Amino acid sequence: MGVDPGLATMGYGVISYDGVKCSMLDYGALITPAGMPLPERLLSLYDGITELCQRFEPDDISMEELFFSKNVTTAIAVGEARGAAMVAMRKHTASLFEYTPMQIKQAVAGYGKADKKQMQQMVKMLLGLKEIPRPDDAADALATAICHAHSSRMRHNFRI
Amino acid sequence: MGVDPGLATMGYGVISYDGVKCSMLDYGALITPAGMPLPERLLSLYDGITELCQRFEPDDISMEELFFSKNVTTAIAVGEARGAAMVAMRKHTASLFEYTPMQIKQAVAGYGKADKKQMQQMVKMLLGLKEIPRPDDAADALATAICHAHSSRMRHNFRI
Repeated sequence: MGVDPGLATMGYGVISYDGVKCSMLDYGALITPAGMPLPERLLSLYDGITELCQRFEPDDISMEELFFSKNVTTAIAVGEARGAAMVAMRKHTASLFEYTPMQIKQAVAGYGKADKKQMQQMVKMLLGLKEIPRPDDAADALATAICHAHSSRMRHNFRI
Repeated sequence: MGVDPGLATMGYGVISYDGVKCSMLDYGALITPAGMPLPERLLSLYDGITELCQRFEPDDISMEELFFSKNVTTAIAVGEARGAAMVAMRKHTASLFEYTPMQIKQAVAGYGKADKKQMQQMVKMLLGLKEIPRPDDAADALATAICHAHSSRMRHNFRI
């Protein structure tokens, strides 16, 4: 399972990998409304990730490494969402991985500077989908999951 | 209970309040070592807050509002710690409150620009302690709890 964390929208994508090919099992996004108090939003994300872990029992969960953000307020909100989600993930499995945006682009599009559109096309193609997954956060989460599957011979430990 | 969230050190302070006077029940800090993988650190903070909630069954939990930080990396780490802790708090109670540093200083020292030393002296005095609580994070957490007790007639809702 790949997860693209955010407070308002947390994308997820679940795939299976037979060692050669990735197949899509599910994707979507957990949404929390802006008018909901912060603790409720975080609990809702925690419960959502817990529910996905129970439903799909993913062996491994991968996330994009949180990147430098110019906006500190956004960075804090994404940090809070990541913190809530990561506890739920860690309760399910210790197999958590993270990748830089460049690693994900390299693994999915074969090119570390691929743009959003190229990435979405590659996700669609690699998973044999009829349409580009929506919302963008779900496509990003699927890309992270594909990156992990393709990197499984040279697994990247979670940063300490 | 007051909590001062941080990834490496999360201060907590538990007090009782009879409507007139605050009494200290416990204080301390949850520590996570820098060499531990991030998901373990977050789970450890989540478990630590859960354990404190089970031990003291606090009616209300208050935190300092996360303040603008010039360092985005620090802001993300504090955000992650806050997110993990807040899920544990919210599972225990919906009575979560937050206060700005100025509100806490005003409530504890009667002066919104009190410095760290003045605040620690006031915490010591108001709780009738023999020494200034250590670490600083625990003293800050106690100050947040005192602020909430003293603000109980004009309760401040958690930001949305």
